[in-house]
Amino acid sequence: MSTSSHSYPMSSGDDQHSYIYNSSYQKACIDGNEEKTRRYILEKFDLLNLNSDLNTLNIADFGCSIGPNTFHAVQYIIDGVKSTHENRLVPLEFQVFFNDQPNNDFNTLFRTQPASSKGEYFSFGVPGSFHGRVLPRNSIHIGHTSYATHWLSEIPEHVCDKKSPAWNNYYIHCNNLIEDVTKAYKVQFTKDMRVFLEARAEEIVPEGLMIILGQCLPDGVPHSETWQGVVVDMIGDCLMDMAKLGVTTVEAIELFSIPVYFPQFSELEREIEQYRSFTLEMMEIISHPLEDIPLSNEFMTSMFRAIFYTIIKEHFGQGVVDELFDRLAKKLTKYPIDFKKCKKHVNYFMLLKRK
Amino acid sequence: MSTSSHSYPMSSGDDQHSYIYNSSYQKACIDGNEEKTRRYILEKFDLLNLNSDLNTLNIADFGCSIGPNTFHAVQYIIDGVKSTHENRLVPLEFQVFFNDQPNNDFNTLFRTQPASSKGEYFSFGVPGSFHGRVLPRNSIHIGHTSYATHWLSEIPEHVCDKKSPAWNNYYIHCNNLIEDVTKAYKVQFTKDMRVFLEARAEEIVPEGLMIILGQCLPDGVPHSETWQGVVVDMIGDCLMDMAKLGVTTVEAIELFSIPVYFPQFSELEREIEQYRSFTLEMMEIISHPLEDIPLSNEFMTSMFRAIFYTIIKEHFGQGVVDELFDRLAKKLTKYPIDFKKCKKHVNYFMLLKRK
Repeated sequence: MSTSSHSYPMSSGDDQHSYIYNSSYQKACIDGNEEKTRRYILEKFDLLNLNSDLNTLNIADFGCSIGPNTFHAVQYIIDGVKSTHENRLVPLEFQVFFNDQPNNDFNTLFRTQPASSKGEYFSFGVPGSFHGRVLPRNSIHIGHTSYATHWLSEIPEHVCDKKSPAWNNYYIHCNNLIEDVTKAYKVQFTKDMRVFLEARAEEIVPEGLMIILGQCLPDGVPHSETWQGVVVDMIGDCLMDMAKLGVTTVEAIELFSIPVYFPQFSELEREIEQYRSFTLEMMEIISHPLEDIPLSNEFMTSMFRAIFYTIIKEHFGQGVVDELFDRLAKKLTKYPIDFKKCKKHVNYFMLLKRK
Repeated sequence: MSTSSHSYPMSSGDDQHSYIYNSSYQKACIDGNEEKTRRYILEKFDLLNLNSDLNTLNIADFGCSIGPNTFHAVQYIIDGVKSTHENRLVPLEFQVFFNDQPNNDFNTLFRTQPASSKGEYFSFGVPGSFHGRVLPRNSIHIGHTSYATHWLSEIPEHVCDKKSPAWNNYYIHCNNLIEDVTKAYKVQFTKDMRVFLEARAEEIVPEGLMIILGQCLPDGVPHSETWQGVVVDMIGDCLMDMAKLGVTTVEAIELFSIPVYFPQFSELEREIEQYRSFTLEMMEIISHPLEDIPLSNEFMTSMFRAIFYTIIKEHFGQGVVDELFDRLAKKLTKYPIDFKKCKKHVNYFMLLKRK
């Protein structure tokens, strides 16, 4: 039932550039925490004991994109629930609600759903922005979202306004180099996170769980010092190079700022603790299986292309995309990322319980 | 959770050839029966009185295709429920499950959903063949399907087998001219209808309703004598013309028979009455607002193209489609349908109640 002003789903379809083939970085983290998901469900999910006549368990993945990660995440949750409630008298049926923006590629999501899962649960596509209600009251037992809540519902006010102190200059994202920009992004993030959790609080049943996986910054580390931040700044540099050649314009770059914000770990923790509808049962930094392996330039180029394809295409036009990422690949070869010197995002696992 | 061998959704997207722009014939009948839908819900749907604490009402449209008809049908049901239960203490929230084959164009469905409906109900896309379970047990209060159950789950056995007495010769559909072919189609239809209703019986709650709209043949009338049957036979003639020119082959036509069966009215009524899980509350012939207006050749060509586009493309190849329907338009001009002489399909409205 939500309305969304603008949305930029991950790259659609299933060709070489699609998110399906370029989401293994995120997948590694979801898979790497399978045991954790199971364990916490075992420890914290006693809703089935309270409702012994419940015969349908409803799971939702908010911001599911087009797979395969969402299918893995959902399967881990189902496995967790099954292992803890093997001896129920009433056999459980599972319903899984795959939520994303209405312009997400649900056709590809449905087409690529693993055949094995079709005997495991009933699938539903739920079109709508998770910055608002997308499901009925008290309808979900376990909610999940991974690598999605850093996307804001809109570009923060003033960051594209040349006359404002919060103008983001020629930067194309929040790299934390301009204090007023960081503030504007933080205001928007706080507002969006509140809206997200208020909507989930209505949708999730009392005693239900909400699992949030994502990336944030280590305390005290600006985004510009992480390798991810460096790559996005490099994309901005490539755009400026292209503006000089007339492929795009400086004005277009000035009006562009990616609506993504990575809070610092403690900042995020404080924010979450303020929401009264949930108790923060657990929040911890989790290791990323790829975190000590320097990523190849090709891998990084493909990953960022899949993530930013839609937003760049919509703002700068389809014609810019190929050249931009060709240039990024070349720039990365010329100025390789020094993974030893760069800081890293941290990955977090958060478990909330509905009061 | 169902598996489907093969499926042929209506023409996707939203261009001039899409089902969206070529489903007004079906829409006329859905719209024309708005009052009937409301009235029967008022008379027969007392489930809400029995469950005064119910706060979510679940509606499913089976074989929804890509709109706009499904949105209209659903709205009529919601309006009917609302008008009969205006004074409930607990406000109702509505969930609508839009079901169709996994290769249905859900992206277009979601993109073209009327903005007004987004404040009215929560939407879900449910990928899966309705010839099997697609929703949890006891989860739906009102089911609906229109102009969908004449599609069979597969081509009946032997109708494409040259050595069988049930071989359909060069006909491309069941026109009732070969008795053994009609029998083979009827066997498949009976089986599919049983599977359809058994699945719905599990999904629909006791006292829940199932509304079925569709087309069938008047008693004693073979399909070959209706204008619809004549047009499809004409499509077959066009294919034969193309085979003579080498655009397709006679062998390809021999292996093609459209998995659609229109039973006669009394035959359908008898079949439905046999299913013990539902009571047949009402079955009646309804008038079609367009039934006394001769349709233009262009209208008929576009309508059949939207309906058969996928199945013809998959069997004969993309290259055949444009030429085939160009030829159909020309043949219709040369041999115009004599609407006064032709028989008509009848449209029926059926209301089942779950025991």
